[in-house]
Amino acid sequence: MTADEISSDDSCVTVPLGARRYDILIGANLIERAGAEIAARLPDVRAAVVSDENVAALYLEPLQGSLAAAGIESTAIVLPAGEKTKHFDHVIDAAERVLDARLERGDLVLALGGGVIGDLAGFVAGIVRRGMRLVQVPTSLLAQVDSSVGGKTGINTAHGKNLVGVFHQPALVLADTGVLDTLSAREFRAGYAEMVKYGLIDRPDFFAWLEDRWREVFAGGPARVKAIAQSCQAKADVVAADEHEHGHRALLNLGHTFGHALEAATGYDGARLVHGEGVAIGMVLAHQFSARLNLASPDDADRVAAHLRAVGLPTAMGDIEGPLPPPDILLDHIGQDKKVKKGKLTFVLTRGVGRSFLADDVPPSAVLSFLKEKHPQ
Amino acid sequence: MTADEISSDDSCVTVPLGARRYDILIGANLIERAGAEIAARLPDVRAAVVSDENVAALYLEPLQGSLAAAGIESTAIVLPAGEKTKHFDHVIDAAERVLDARLERGDLVLALGGGVIGDLAGFVAGIVRRGMRLVQVPTSLLAQVDSSVGGKTGINTAHGKNLVGVFHQPALVLADTGVLDTLSAREFRAGYAEMVKYGLIDRPDFFAWLEDRWREVFAGGPARVKAIAQSCQAKADVVAADEHEHGHRALLNLGHTFGHALEAATGYDGARLVHGEGVAIGMVLAHQFSARLNLASPDDADRVAAHLRAVGLPTAMGDIEGPLPPPDILLDHIGQDKKVKKGKLTFVLTRGVGRSFLADDVPPSAVLSFLKEKHPQ
Repeated sequence: MTADEISSDDSCVTVPLGARRYDILIGANLIERAGAEIAARLPDVRAAVVSDENVAALYLEPLQGSLAAAGIESTAIVLPAGEKTKHFDHVIDAAERVLDARLERGDLVLALGGGVIGDLAGFVAGIVRRGMRLVQVPTSLLAQVDSSVGGKTGINTAHGKNLVGVFHQPALVLADTGVLDTLSAREFRAGYAEMVKYGLIDRPDFFAWLEDRWREVFAGGPARVKAIAQSCQAKADVVAADEHEHGHRALLNLGHTFGHALEAATGYDGARLVHGEGVAIGMVLAHQFSARLNLASPDDADRVAAHLRAVGLPTAMGDIEGPLPPPDILLDHIGQDKKVKKGKLTFVLTRGVGRSFLADDVPPSAVLSFLKEKHPQ
Repeated sequence: MTADEISSDDSCVTVPLGARRYDILIGANLIERAGAEIAARLPDVRAAVVSDENVAALYLEPLQGSLAAAGIESTAIVLPAGEKTKHFDHVIDAAERVLDARLERGDLVLALGGGVIGDLAGFVAGIVRRGMRLVQVPTSLLAQVDSSVGGKTGINTAHGKNLVGVFHQPALVLADTGVLDTLSAREFRAGYAEMVKYGLIDRPDFFAWLEDRWREVFAGGPARVKAIAQSCQAKADVVAADEHEHGHRALLNLGHTFGHALEAATGYDGARLVHGEGVAIGMVLAHQFSARLNLASPDDADRVAAHLRAVGLPTAMGDIEGPLPPPDILLDHIGQDKKVKKGKLTFVLTRGVGRSFLADDVPPSAVLSFLKEKHPQ
């Protein structure tokens, strides 16, 4: 499927996982239509809606109204907003409240929010009664094109992010593109970085299409729906090929090894760097590093940086405000990343735009000298 | 395979789950041989051994010695003994300690203990890094023939037992029959009830063999290995047919609906009733209730009760010391059991020894009048 073959208003992408296959619906007003879409696919269920205070203030009432209109009884579990909510304490609290509502295995946990709520509610759905049905209603662009699809759930621990969780696929994803208009420009751009990532992994035509049409994607309307659907299709293809990340799925980490290190180096301070911004810089660094290793042309790295800069994303370590730790500390952060195996560093590298591949034997010394070269201080 | 076809010393049963297939080894001295058996199947791993204080005092040192001799580095996580350990607090503690040891996804969580440790450590293995490898080393008969096989893991919450957990299959089960000699007679009998259950579900020949040879099974030696292997084979067959309990697997709950209600009615006080004893009484009640519904002959219920009584297990509510709540409260406990769907009661009923089936439309009124008839007070 190319981007232009996707229909213009609503779009539906299917994640083909056999008996656990599920649809991702993308379109306007899907929160208002949620009850009908769920009832058509999952008859005779009740639901617990998990959300955060910010999102609930905007969308909880319309969503619960839509469920009620379709005959779906629901209870609301509203948690504090922010990354700190991805903690065992909130898992326990939410699990007990799902059980308070006497929901059964066939009933729904419905995640209404961004990545934090999706990851936490997905984990709760994965463990209460050894696995309840999950419906994702992502309300950030990042969640719509990435975290709500593919079944990764999790919470953070003292040791790091997403170190505890399960793979638990949703039964349905409802990506309401209308809610994106309430995002700040910065939040939208951060999600956009993950869309660019799919082009850079193995869809050069999609990357070229984004270079050409990004203004329409930012403006909303059919081009935005198309771009989200194309991103979900890209993710669905990867998840179908390697659901539990034994290999191929790790390509989705393009830009993430450098990106996570920069997030850690800035103390996960969203005022300085949000996840999608770290990924944007990380993707440029991955292309530059691949060029330094003579795997790709430096022109590709320049092309990637030019597009990300055009939409307003940071593209270099020097774009981050405030001081960064020295290169050897950045390398330590990379080494603590969970994608390290037996002392060798695993990176997604590239032979050019849309030609990424997994390298599991990158010498730390090569990374260190590259970081020294690119370090702004 | 019939019981007599199983080889006499060691035995190996395979749970056929495609790429996730695994072996259950049954035999003497398997704790001493654990390192070699693991290294032969899972090269280049490290391990966290989860155990409780009682079991660790007996077997932790030999197990870790065996691992070390095979070149497997291990760390020990020793928790308090008892059902209260199946709590979120201990999950969090154990998860953090697995991460402290910097274990990776391919590394092992090794559960050394009875059902409590197996359920808890299995859950930890299922959620740390979204699923690590799990090796079960069950040290009670109940765990060897039931809970260590089949991938059910979980903890208790304020709402009840095993309401939070995941399905997470082990990579290997090592059932050391030597450790069973340190069990009390009461603990051994409780595990034996679950062996009888497999015969009653769909293996009438195995039930007849147990009637004939139970003294040898209790004495130890080849007959015990045979009986454990036959039980594991029965469970493996059911798990292979219905891993996630969408239907057929629920047959394993024969005797458990009445049994759980009696456990709840006695406040989970192990001095009055342990799980296997509840199952023994529950299996007799299930056969008697099936006879009352004209599904089976009362002779079958008498035969089942006679065998369980012969080995020293309780077979009637009157065998439980102290007062029981009235029949309507017992019915409430049955109704709160998680195997209830949309107000109808789900029971495993039978048409005779080895001819159990799932009935999901049992009227509560029929259960109540049966309970009134059988109630001792």
